Parts: sequence; structure tokens; C-alpha cells
Amino acid sequence: MNEPSKKSTKPDAANSANNKSSSKKSHAAAITPRAQDYSQWYLDIIAAADMAEHASVKGAMVIKPTGYAIWEMMQHILDAKFKATGVENAYFPLFIPESLLKKEASHVAGFAPEVAVVTHAGGKKLAEPLVVRPTSETIIYDTYAKWVHSYRDLPILINQWANVVRWEMRPRLFLRTTEFLWQEGHTVHETEAEADARARQMLDVYTDFAENYLAMPVIAGTKSPSERFAGAQETYTIEAMMQDGKALQAGTSHLLGQNFAKAFGIQFTTRDGKKDFAWQTSWGVSTRMIGGLIMTHSDDAGLVLPPLIAPTQVVIIPIGKSAEELTMVMTAVKKLAAELTAAGVRLHIDTREHLRPGEKFFAWEKKGVPVRVEIGPKDVAKGSLVLARRDTSAKIVCGLGEAATKIEEMLKTIQKDLFIKAQQQRDNNTHEISEWEEAKKVFEKGGFVRAWWCGDAVCEAKIKEETKATIRCLPFERQGDGEGKCLHCGKVAKTKVIFAKAY
Amino acid sequence: MNEPSKKSTKPDAANSANNKSSSKKSHAAAITPRAQDYSQWYLDIIAAADMAEHASVKGAMVIKPTGYAIWEMMQHILDAKFKATGVENAYFPLFIPESLLKKEASHVAGFAPEVAVVTHAGGKKLAEPLVVRPTSETIIYDTYAKWVHSYRDLPILINQWANVVRWEMRPRLFLRTTEFLWQEGHTVHETEAEADARARQMLDVYTDFAENYLAMPVIAGTKSPSERFAGAQETYTIEAMMQDGKALQAGTSHLLGQNFAKAFGIQFTTRDGKKDFAWQTSWGVSTRMIGGLIMTHSDDAGLVLPPLIAPTQVVIIPIGKSAEELTMVMTAVKKLAAELTAAGVRLHIDTREHLRPGEKFFAWEKKGVPVRVEIGPKDVAKGSLVLARRDTSAKIVCGLGEAATKIEEMLKTIQKDLFIKAQQQRDNNTHEISEWEEAKKVFEKGGFVRAWWCGDAVCEAKIKEETKATIRCLPFERQGDGEGKCLHCGKVAKTKVIFAKAY
Repeated sequence: MNEPSKKSTKPDAANSANNKSSSKKSHAAAITPRAQDYSQWYLDIIAAADMAEHASVKGAMVIKPTGYAIWEMMQHILDAKFKATGVENAYFPLFIPESLLKKEASHVAGFAPEVAVVTHAGGKKLAEPLVVRPTSETIIYDTYAKWVHSYRDLPILINQWANVVRWEMRPRLFLRTTEFLWQEGHTVHETEAEADARARQMLDVYTDFAENYLAMPVIAGTKSPSERFAGAQETYTIEAMMQDGKALQAGTSHLLGQNFAKAFGIQFTTRDGKKDFAWQTSWGVSTRMIGGLIMTHSDDAGLVLPPLIAPTQVVIIPIGKSAEELTMVMTAVKKLAAELTAAGVRLHIDTREHLRPGEKFFAWEKKGVPVRVEIGPKDVAKGSLVLARRDTSAKIVCGLGEAATKIEEMLKTIQKDLFIKAQQQRDNNTHEISEWEEAKKVFEKGGFVRAWWCGDAVCEAKIKEETKATIRCLPFERQGDGEGKCLHCGKVAKTKVIFAKAY
Repeated sequence: MNEPSKKSTKPDAANSANNKSSSKKSHAAAITPRAQDYSQWYLDIIAAADMAEHASVKGAMVIKPTGYAIWEMMQHILDAKFKATGVENAYFPLFIPESLLKKEASHVAGFAPEVAVVTHAGGKKLAEPLVVRPTSETIIYDTYAKWVHSYRDLPILINQWANVVRWEMRPRLFLRTTEFLWQEGHTVHETEAEADARARQMLDVYTDFAENYLAMPVIAGTKSPSERFAGAQETYTIEAMMQDGKALQAGTSHLLGQNFAKAFGIQFTTRDGKKDFAWQTSWGVSTRMIGGLIMTHSDDAGLVLPPLIAPTQVVIIPIGKSAEELTMVMTAVKKLAAELTAAGVRLHIDTREHLRPGEKFFAWEKKGVPVRVEIGPKDVAKGSLVLARRDTSAKIVCGLGEAATKIEEMLKTIQKDLFIKAQQQRDNNTHEISEWEEAKKVFEKGGFVRAWWCGDAVCEAKIKEETKATIRCLPFERQGDGEGKCLHCGKVAKTKVIFAKAY
């Protein structure tokens, strides 16, 4: 699967940012405002929320517990959705013999420049170098060829959760790292129609996940031929808009056709006794999704997480000066915590003694916990407490008895509001454009351009060269609605596409 | 963590066995009886249950869905147990700069001979070769050194689920593969006592998991100095006995002392304002546990799984010739399935049309599903069904209304009985021995020898050279009970140990 590499315009300053985060003093480190320096803001958010840092190995990332917990949430949700469609998990080797990688010509052309190669092992030089998987089509399909003999062996519906390595010259935490974590699904089918339906079904799973869990609106569509996955017949994608107006490819699903089946000899006896090559798909999302999540919702005060993906949805901060006050407060806290836990809410009670309440508010704000509960002796006396929303900073006072219900409602509201806000931001920065000069202004400023495209790869390449904008996708919903003039060359065009600069 | 390598006495024939399993005809492939050829039996079980096979890369393994589902069960149970002790998950890089691996002298000595090395990446030769992690102490502690400044930063309680690579000359599915999956926990503490308590606590988690979930009785104890993990101050282990009387090290937990802290500079300000090096632990279990599970319970008919680790606990086989019969049977099946699912039982209904009931019984027997439910039109007419136990082959007839309850009871009974059976097998093959000649006979035949050991590594080495038996552990429960004569040299000995040949 492809995670497009992209030239960054500014150096990655994460190392210095992370040195800050490694000390407990990091809570005091300021977050650069988005308006001032968007790239630095992104790195500051990661450091302030203590999510990840660069490792000693160039381009590699340490995913810290706070960041990894988000990945675990993503895995948990996606894994259940995959299994609900009949997919099973398996595990294939990390190392791919160089000769296997070379079997599908366009695939090796796409990946060869960025692979890491093992040449020595067990104290000896290897007879054949081993490539550390950049994606697993080749090693998996070499195995599938042994499994598939008859239509009765199909479909194969397998996914694996794994690490992959692609050498990155300009690493950026979560977005581009030499090693990243992902899932890659690999299915085999009797017919093209069945394979295509599966590729689209998995894109639908990604769309559902992005929109209904990450609160990240996406545009689903087809990639232009030049942006396809290396070796695919068709690549489907979901594209999200970040707050700076750039696109992020959040997940892709490929109809591989019979390309790999022919290269690896995945052949089967059909229902009518003939021999045919199998039809395949592959599809994946990675830890890059965490980068997209950060850039969709976070603000100048820190990370903002939609409740459905937040490892901690509610933080309760008991306030009290004396032991007596704290005992009284904790009684109310424990009752509320029990109610919330019973309702399936993921919560944390911050009982640290060496921090003042204000410091705690500040710390959890940076970590993006959706709802903060403040409760002190005066609140208990009045039978109330304070709920604060991370996304809007709005505070409400509510009765102790109704708090659990109010919190559950608030979580639902935040989830919905974050999606609407992101959608508005995207729609406000999406422009239906027919004039090339106008389009260039949008690319400069940031945003999506919806326009006609003649379908010529040369024209597409010129646009990229001039502006760095690429065709993000041919949106499913916008095809077949007539014709117009190509944004760049002015020729007759029947394809409507989204152009944008991208991560 | 260490997974001891071991010279196999016979070549691994899994490739041919797996070619059989890759075709649907594999159900007919015979399983070599244990008594005839234990090694071949092990490989036949894996092939017959369709759990794993060798990949194109020498020594690497493809874990197929049936095998991987068992690993997912293991992960699920262990992960919850780790988290219950305060451990969080994170993720550290796959590649370790060679210079980092060399920082702890005895560690590099232990692992250097078996590492795989990346020398080229991104089309260029690397300035410094990168080692593919054989274990992650070095890369993680290099990072911890940046995180730890004060006692307030401690403890650090982190685990990662990852793949590791150790070059194996004689691979064997699950037991020794060049790449395997595992978890590795890495904790940092203020004091030796706290670190030691954590190392023992995690061994207790492994003991609980092995005995109460895998139904695999283990002996917990300390490794002799020569069998310690490379770089550890003390290694704790759990040792299980396989059906051939050989030992399998099922999990280890290491008190690392300050060895790595000194090598990597993990230093902190103590509560009384001084500087000290931190105290550390590491602990892990791997996919090798699946090999142990297979060899503890399986029989000549196929895999046998304890219900608590079985991905599918119950298989229901509806029997009927006509559509009418099947409709009637399926009504009863669906009712039972709903009751079992509500009770949390993991079940599968085998509705395949191209297989006869007998073929299905046979197929599920090989896959080790603990309980089989047979139900046909005559059963429904009588209001009853048949339950068959995988472990004993015992069948009982029970009423439809009481079936769910009976099945739940049966699952509990199987879990308990498998543990008792394995414990008896182990106890029957464990001998309290003081004469060297007698011990040699046990090593020849297979079994554990409980004996006195003088404590001399030279004596230990001689025993290994003569018999291939090693000290599996100094059992916790048997220390301090007097003295005797060393099994080998006859000198005064105060340490009671378990000797055995091991996987």
C-alpha cells in the first residue's frame, strides 16, 4: 500500500521539542500557535501531549504510552470491523528475499528506492539479500500461490498488523517515519467483480472509521493512474483536509487485478473446470492516521481528541486542601466514577498530590481529554460539580445525581460537534474552480480545488511541477456529471477531481 | 530476554507436511503417532490443525489464521493482566545502531552471533550498520536515559508487543524461528528491592497464565548463573514438561540490576538528593508458548486446546439430509447458539454442505476444539443432542434445554482435567535422584531430575556435555532445605535444582 512521500518545506524540529517533553517540566513548554508556524505547532502538540519522539536511529520514532494508547484504540475498533466482514488475522515474515520483491515489475520500481536491506545475519554474509518489508504483497502472495488450487480455496480474507520500513529522507513524527505500524489486508477472489466489491467494502470501513470515530470528514474516490499503488489496477482512497488546507491520504484500498497473481502464479481451477489467475485486493491504514487526527482537531492549547477514539474520555480532578475535605470529595468522586464505569466511560481520577488543580487542568488540556470534571468541597456541599469541554472550553455546573448522564450526553455532543467543525472547515476551504490562476492562489493559501481534468498524465505532472498540488482523487460522487474545460490545459474534460497539496 | 537455542536431533520436515496442509485434502493426511516419532508428530499436528508453515525465507514462519487466533487469545489475556499491574504499552524502533548494542558487554556477547544486520537503505550504504532487534534492552534504555532525571520519573512500567529476529540455524515452527512475535516488558525502579519485586510479580503473572489458562503446570525458579539472560543480575523462569519429558522454558523475567543503567546512563536524583543509577527489569513470553501448548496437551488424533485459550470453544454440527430436516435442526441450533453466546462461549456452527458429518468431526478433532455438539433430526425429535469432549472422546446425551449449562460445565471440567493430566504426566516423569548413573538413564528416556548441585559452573558444563541436560532452574520452593551430595561431582551441595534436556 502506498503512503506517499512528500518533500517538507521546513526541517523537522521534533528532536528539540522532544527533549523538552522528556522532562516533567514540559508542561510549561509553550505551544507555537498554528497561525505563526503550523509545522512547529504540530510538533509542539505531540511533545506537549507526550505522544512520541524521535529515536537514536535516524527517522525512527518512539511511540510513547499516550500516543500508543490511541493506536490501540484504532486497532481495537478497526480489527472488530474487519472481522465483522469475515477477515481473519495472520502473520507473515518481516524479511522478503530480493528476488521475490522483483517479481512484479511496477511494484519493485515503486518500492526499491526506499527499502532497507539485510546483507549479513548469524555472523555471515547472506547468499541473497533480504529486504525489510515496505509492504507485504510479494511475500504474502508467494505463500498464497501454495494455498490456492481450486475455487473452493477462495476467497482468502486475511489481514495482518505489522511494522513496515520505508527509508525516509525527511522524517516527520507519525506522518513519515522510516518504520511505522499499520494493518495490511490481502484478499484473493474468483472474479474481478468480487475483488472490486471487496476493495470498495474495505474503503467503506475506512470511511466509517474516519468519519464516525475520528470525526474526520473524508472524500472517497479513485486515484489517478499516476498516483496508484505500485502494481495496482485501481487505487481507492479517502482524503481528509488538515487545518492548514493540505490533504492527508488517510487510507487506501487497492484492486490489484490479476497483476500479482500472474507474477506469483496464483492460479485456480474455476467452477467450470478451467484455469484462471485469481483477482486480488490489498488495503491499509497506518500510524499516519494519528498525525491526521492531531491535525484535524487540535488547537493552540494542545491535543483535542474525539471521545470515541480517546483512551481517556473523562478526567476527574478532586479538589480539597485538608484531608477532611478530600475525603468528602472522594466519596462523591468514587460514586460518579462507578456510575461512569458502569456506563462504559473510560475515565481517570487525577489524585496526584504534588500538583495544584490549575496545573492539572493545564496538563489534561494538552493531552486532549474530552471532558474534565472539577469537584471541590463547596461543590459537594451544594450537591453539584463542574464539567468542562476540551473542544470549546465551555463549562457547565450540574447536579451530582445527573452528572453521569450529562457527561455521556456531553461526550456524544463533542463527537458530533468536532465532525461538524471539521466539515465546515473543509467546505469553507474547498473551491469549485475553472480558472488556473485562481487555482494557484488556493494552492498557495491552502485548500481543495474541485475542477475538471482532461485525464492526461502530462497535464497532471505539469500542475504538480508548477504548484506541488496533486490529484487527491476522482470523487465517487462527482463522476459522470457532464463535462467541462480542463483546469490546466483547457481541453475538453469529463473527469472532476480534487487537487491539493498534501502531506 | 533469552529463548535458548537448542540443537535438534532430526531435520525439520515441516515443509513437506505443510505442502500437504495447503490443500483441502490435508484432512486425510495421517498424523505420525507420538510413540513412533515425537518430532514428526509435532510437525504433523501443526499441519493438520493448519496453524503455521515455513516461508520462502529460511527459518521464517507464516502463522496461519488458526495459529494466529491462539496468539491473539494469549495477547488478549496477558495484556489485560499486565495493565492490571500498572503497565502501559508503547513502541520502540525495530533497528538498533550497532554501537548501542555494544554498550553492555555481556549483552552484546550473548546476542551478536545471532543478529541480522541492515547495511544498506534508501539505495545507499549506511554509515553505521543497523541491527534488527533480537531483544530491545539497548534501544529502549538509550531512550529511558533521556526520560529519567528524578525519582519522580520512576517507576517506568512499559511493555511492547513486537517482532524480534534471531538467526536460527535449525528452525522449528513456533519453537525456534528466525523471526518470532513476543511481548517484552521493561521497567525502571528506584531500588533493587522494588525491581526484584516487579521481576517476581511478572513471573507470577506468567505462572498464573501458564497454569490457569494454558493448563500447563510449571516450575518457577531461578536460573543458574550460566543460564542467565545476557546482562542480567538474576533470571527467573517458569519451566514446563512436554509429553516427551523434555523441558520447555515458557517465560522469563530478569532482574537486570544496575548493569544496563550504568551502560546507558540511566541516573536519577534520589529522594534524599543524591545521584544513583536506576534498577531495572525485563520480562517476556513469545509465540514459542504456542509450541509448548501443542506439546503439553495434543494427542495422536490432533491438537487439543484448553477451553480458556481456545479461539473456538464449541463447534456445533447440524446433521440432516433434507432441507426440511435441516430447517428443524437449525432452529434448535440457533436457540442453543444464542444461549451460549449470551454466556460468553466462543462457538462456530459448521454448515458446510460439501462435507459429511464424519468428515467434519474429524476436521474439528484435528483443530482441537474442546467440545463438539452433534444434533440431527432424531435428536431434535427426542429433545436431546450429543456432546463430545475432544480431550477424552467421551460422549454424553443431554436435553436441549440443559445443553448450554452442560456445555459450560464441560468446558470447566476439560480445563481442570487437562491441567491435572499434564501435572500427573510431569510428576510421573520427575525423579528425585542422587546417583549419576540413574540420572543419565532419565535424561536418555526423558524426564526431570531433581538433584543436589554443588554450585560449580564447571560441574554444570560437564553434565551438559555428557548428557545435553541443563539446569532448568533452582525451584523457589525447594531452596534452603538442607544439604546433600552433588549429583555429578559428589561434593557437598546446598542447592537443589531441576536438570533436564530442553527445547
